[in-house]
Amino acid sequence: ARFGSAPAGEIWSGDDAAVVRAPSGDLLLTTDMLVEGLDFDLAHAGGADIGWKALAANASDIAAMCGRPHHAVVALGLRLDTPEDLVEGLLDGLMKAAQRWRIGVVGGDLSGAGEISITVALTGSPVGAGVVTRAGAKAGDAICVTGSLGGAAAGLVALRRDLERTEPVRRLVARQLRPAARVNEAALLAECGPSAVIDVSDGLAVDLHRLCTESRVGCEVGERDIPIDPDMGVVGDLDFLELALLGGEDFELLFTVPKERVDETGRRIGEVGTTVSRIGTVTSGPRRLGSQSLDHWKERGWQHLRGR
Amino acid sequence: ARFGSAPAGEIWSGDDAAVVRAPSGDLLLTTDMLVEGLDFDLAHAGGADIGWKALAANASDIAAMCGRPHHAVVALGLRLDTPEDLVEGLLDGLMKAAQRWRIGVVGGDLSGAGEISITVALTGSPVGAGVVTRAGAKAGDAICVTGSLGGAAAGLVALRRDLERTEPVRRLVARQLRPAARVNEAALLAECGPSAVIDVSDGLAVDLHRLCTESRVGCEVGERDIPIDPDMGVVGDLDFLELALLGGEDFELLFTVPKERVDETGRRIGEVGTTVSRIGTVTSGPRRLGSQSLDHWKERGWQHLRGR
Repeated sequence: ARFGSAPAGEIWSGDDAAVVRAPSGDLLLTTDMLVEGLDFDLAHAGGADIGWKALAANASDIAAMCGRPHHAVVALGLRLDTPEDLVEGLLDGLMKAAQRWRIGVVGGDLSGAGEISITVALTGSPVGAGVVTRAGAKAGDAICVTGSLGGAAAGLVALRRDLERTEPVRRLVARQLRPAARVNEAALLAECGPSAVIDVSDGLAVDLHRLCTESRVGCEVGERDIPIDPDMGVVGDLDFLELALLGGEDFELLFTVPKERVDETGRRIGEVGTTVSRIGTVTSGPRRLGSQSLDHWKERGWQHLRGR
Repeated sequence: ARFGSAPAGEIWSGDDAAVVRAPSGDLLLTTDMLVEGLDFDLAHAGGADIGWKALAANASDIAAMCGRPHHAVVALGLRLDTPEDLVEGLLDGLMKAAQRWRIGVVGGDLSGAGEISITVALTGSPVGAGVVTRAGAKAGDAICVTGSLGGAAAGLVALRRDLERTEPVRRLVARQLRPAARVNEAALLAECGPSAVIDVSDGLAVDLHRLCTESRVGCEVGERDIPIDPDMGVVGDLDFLELALLGGEDFELLFTVPKERVDETGRRIGEVGTTVSRIGTVTSGPRRLGSQSLDHWKERGWQHLRGR
């Protein structure tokens, strides 16, 4: 009942499987699992945060194909001692995110478990001429990223240090607990002819490395061109650039686009209030970020992810 | 790489989301989660059993809509100390089931966890004129079930009692660890005009109760007409009828069909070597199973499920 009612001709939860209208052409499919203790900490995150983030992480994967999300199914693993208001909160957060990105939550499964987990699978379809993969970047293209980086990681630090909730701290915490998937931005980006897109889920260094590897290209990225989250200063003694490059979970779109379309892309995505920063150029040479190789940063990114 | 390669025009694992060809018309969506200790016991089940069963349980849900399964995404929660051969086995079993029912495993997510779990989400599309729900049974229709019941529950008993693996014991164990989803049977059934279909995942009593509730009908079912698994005798001192009614996980199709089409349905489904038993009749009166009310059996079914 919490999942909302189906439009005419569709069947949402309650039968063996949900029945929805298929998109014409391509169907996008993704899944993401969040696990207690690893992906969220109940000391910091409420049920609504967890439900929201589970859907946001999946919606971000669809956006990263230049797709629009459609329908989700949700599997919940619940401890027998899970408080009922945590479950209620989880469904609240899930449905709030579903409304935000117009996703139908059409079915699910509930299982007993030794730890709380939420696994979402999400469908979608391409918005523009077709999907945009990680593999199409070409030497000469501009490398761009939406919004700013490092805020989600700084928000986690703020939560762990239990910082007083001033306005900037609140915004950082929101970036960690209630991330925005760039769904509307992806739809606008699709009109600007991007050559490759990925979302920044594991940190710019790791995700840019993936894009370059799949596209078989090099890159030159300027450290000073990285859009560091403007609120990070309030957390104090952090290496802001490191958090921006290694932090992850910002769910921004990292993309490449022909140089001559950078301005247009910034203008179009600016229509929904999101900035676009050009951070570098695709090359046929080595992969460099500032004065170091991207490989070096990628290795540090993986260390950071393992230590999180 | 283990998931196989995509046909031309599709993208399977490796990008942010998978891209597959959408079916025309209706899209079916379902998800099912198996959790260590609750849904499987590593003392009895190998990795390949778990992977197989996860896909079979989902395929059975699609079959229960008279649908054909298409594409799956898989989220694995793995303990850090999970042996590598268990993971390999899990993928093997998953891919074997995928081949059996021609399902493309197109993507997934891997997460650290405190316990092993596997969550599959599966798409499908209706085979015949359209989906068949649980809600269409009409007074006068025949109530039928494919195959036999109780074997999966008896197989669990055989495993727990560590019975010698004679041929019948082997078959019972296979029904517990490597259940068959009735995918091909569902496609044949679709041609016979069924009025309602559900799969027997929680036991005949519970699932028949669901079908009757959704269809707002009564039923008369004969105890002696229940097709009890012929191998159950080897397990010894069990109440065979109880296991058949309450046991669950048989993944047979329970369906209603106009009386005059029962013979045709049996013939058609017989083509793939699966029997069909008529177990009763849909009525506009009370719900009865043998000499008792179906509600009574349903309550016992839930007790059985909780105690499992």
